[in-house]
Formats: sequence, C-alpha cells, structure tokens
Amino acid sequence: MDVAPPTDELVPRARRGRPGYDRDQVLGIAVSLFNEKGYDATSVSDLAERLGLTKSALYHHFASKEHVLDLALDDALTSLERVLEHPEAQHGPADARLAHVIRGAVRVLIEKLPSVTLLLRVRGNSPVELSALERRRVFDHRVTEVVRRAQDEGHLRADVDPAVATRLVFGMVNSLTEWYRPGGALDAEQLSTVVLSTALDGLRTPPDPR
Amino acid sequence: MDVAPPTDELVPRARRGRPGYDRDQVLGIAVSLFNEKGYDATSVSDLAERLGLTKSALYHHFASKEHVLDLALDDALTSLERVLEHPEAQHGPADARLAHVIRGAVRVLIEKLPSVTLLLRVRGNSPVELSALERRRVFDHRVTEVVRRAQDEGHLRADVDPAVATRLVFGMVNSLTEWYRPGGALDAEQLSTVVLSTALDGLRTPPDPR
Repeated sequence: MDVAPPTDELVPRARRGRPGYDRDQVLGIAVSLFNEKGYDATSVSDLAERLGLTKSALYHHFASKEHVLDLALDDALTSLERVLEHPEAQHGPADARLAHVIRGAVRVLIEKLPSVTLLLRVRGNSPVELSALERRRVFDHRVTEVVRRAQDEGHLRADVDPAVATRLVFGMVNSLTEWYRPGGALDAEQLSTVVLSTALDGLRTPPDPR
Repeated sequence: MDVAPPTDELVPRARRGRPGYDRDQVLGIAVSLFNEKGYDATSVSDLAERLGLTKSALYHHFASKEHVLDLALDDALTSLERVLEHPEAQHGPADARLAHVIRGAVRVLIEKLPSVTLLLRVRGNSPVELSALERRRVFDHRVTEVVRRAQDEGHLRADVDPAVATRLVFGMVNSLTEWYRPGGALDAEQLSTVVLSTALDGLRTPPDPR
C-alpha cells in the first residue's frame, strides 16, 4: 500500500516570527505542553501563556491549536514512514528488512520523542487525529507484511500471528516514550540493539552451542 | 520493599445507590469516559450527563472526580500487586517466578482493561496520580529484582540491563491496552503464552536442535 510522499510543505522551516521564537521553537514548546497537560485540556490561552505571547502573536505562527497538532503528528509520521521507504526496508531478506525497520523506529522515537509521544496518545477525537490514526494503521500493516514475509522465508517463528508479533515489537519500541530520557545510560544505537535482540532472540540465555 | 496490603475498603462493593446503577457500574462508566475524553478534560458535569444522573446523585456515590480516579487506579494497582504477592512469584527459580508475573500481568490487563488503561495514562498531575505512579515504580522495581535474580541464576541473558529488560517486557504487556479488544481471536491464556514466549525466546526461528 502506498503512503503519501513526505509533505515537506507542512513541516515548519526555521522562519522568524515574533522576536524570541521561530516557528519550530513555538511548535516544540506547544508539543511539550500538549504532552504535559493533554492536548484536549490545553487551550490556546494556555499555549500563549506558556510561550509568553499574546494569542494574536500565536496566530501569527499557526492557524489554530489543531494546526499545531497536525504539524507535530505529521512530523512524527513522516519520519516513521521514511524508515519504511528506505532501500534497506524495501529490498533483501525480510528479516533484515524488519531489523532495519525496528532500528529505524527506535531512532525516530529518540530523535522525535515529543512528537511521537503526542502521536501515541492520539485517540481519534477530530479529523486530524483520525487521519493520524489511519497513517499509523497503514504503517503497522506494512510492518506486519514484512513480518509475514520473514515467517514465509523461514527466519521468524510461524506460530505467532504476524499482526500480534508486530504489535508486541512496537509495544517495546513505543514504551521508550514512557521511560527513555535523553542523556540516559544508553544511546540510540545501543537501545536499538537491545530492542532488536530482545525482539528476535528474547531474554533467555541462549542454549549452549555445543 | 513491602507494598501496602490490598485496600479492600477502597474497592467499591456492589451497593445500591440511585435506581439503575450500583456503585461499581457508576465507576465502570466513569472510567470508560475518562479513557475516552481524558481524565483532565472530563468534568463532573460530563460524568453526570453520561450517566443520566444529576451531579448531586453522582456525589451520592463518590466524593469527587478524584475519588473516582483513586478507586479505579487502586483497583488496577492492587490486582497487579497481588500477582507479585502470589506464592509462585515469591518462591522457586527466578525465571519461573518471572513467567508467573508476566502471565499474571497479562491476565490483569485483560480482566481490568479500562482501569489499567487509565493507570497507564496517569502523568502525575495530582497527589492521587503521584501516589499511583509511586506504586507503579515499586512494582517495576520488584519485577526488576526478579529479572536480576534470573540473570544471576543463569537463566536470562546478563547483557541486557534488568531495568531495561523489565521495561521492554512491560512495553509488550502494556501495549495490550492499545490493541486488545475483548472477544478477539486470542483469549487471555493464549495471549499470555504469546507474550511470554516472545519475551523469553524472541521471534526468530529456533536453531535446529540437531
């Protein structure tokens, strides 16, 4: 299934708005506030207050609160979709493709932690949220197809439903938004290695090769 | 570390309040609404409206919105803590104790899906939420000690930090609140088997035993 090409126009460029903040910075602060208070519980007045801006200065940057949400969700989704579009996720044995996807998803979560956190809390309360959920579903579906292929190729156990396997793996990946904090003991590379090896080989001590 | 004994007094009994609902039913409907709209975004008026009760009839059941939250979180946490208190989680080889904990946690998530879902969304915005987060931390810490012991006993790989391993396993378990729906293809027993085998043995095809 095809996914819309990355919508670069929607991703804000560092463009000067009011003195003190550019558009990306306003977006970043807004996403942090949404994650802290909950999107629905955050008013435009709350946003303006957190930014130390008037509401009209805020509307200089964004058409509405939902516009801010749309940009943040699109940023997270586009980054995840790019992982699937990468040649290493498209060609070669499916288990290697899956490994690329898992590592790439961990990297995106760490690099885009606030916007992915926001994405994972979306419940479908508006057209913007429903559209984000639909893009998540397409993403999950495409990963499930890679898992199914890896089972068909004999590299993954066939006794786990590929959709369930995908959800469990992304349960591990997405849990990073709950407990990973930048500057922790493990960097993105180490974390992606731990997640990948846990997903593929489990936590049990490997049998003695002799 | 000890955990307070299950606070049965806080868990509502099926006691008649207003005609049409007992206290457990009111609690159940309230928890569903919190999960749907977000706790902070739900007002007492929203609750009364959903229940078709006046606010004063609602206050007949519960002292406040936070009281409802407290009961629901306590219900989820007490159930999880009981898994850890079970003799099979307390005695014997640590890998078997961990298996009991993982299976038990999956069962609790399925049996108490709405209240565990609410628990997992708590961010610490009030004393009730902070206290629930602290009980979650104690729970995680106790599971981490079981994982560490299983590593010491040689049954789990020692190259994954036990706290990280615990978080990844509970990332899988907790993801059930996002995608498991009652009446789906897998029942609690089958789901706990899939989660356990994925956590311990991973998704890769086992090496040929010959």
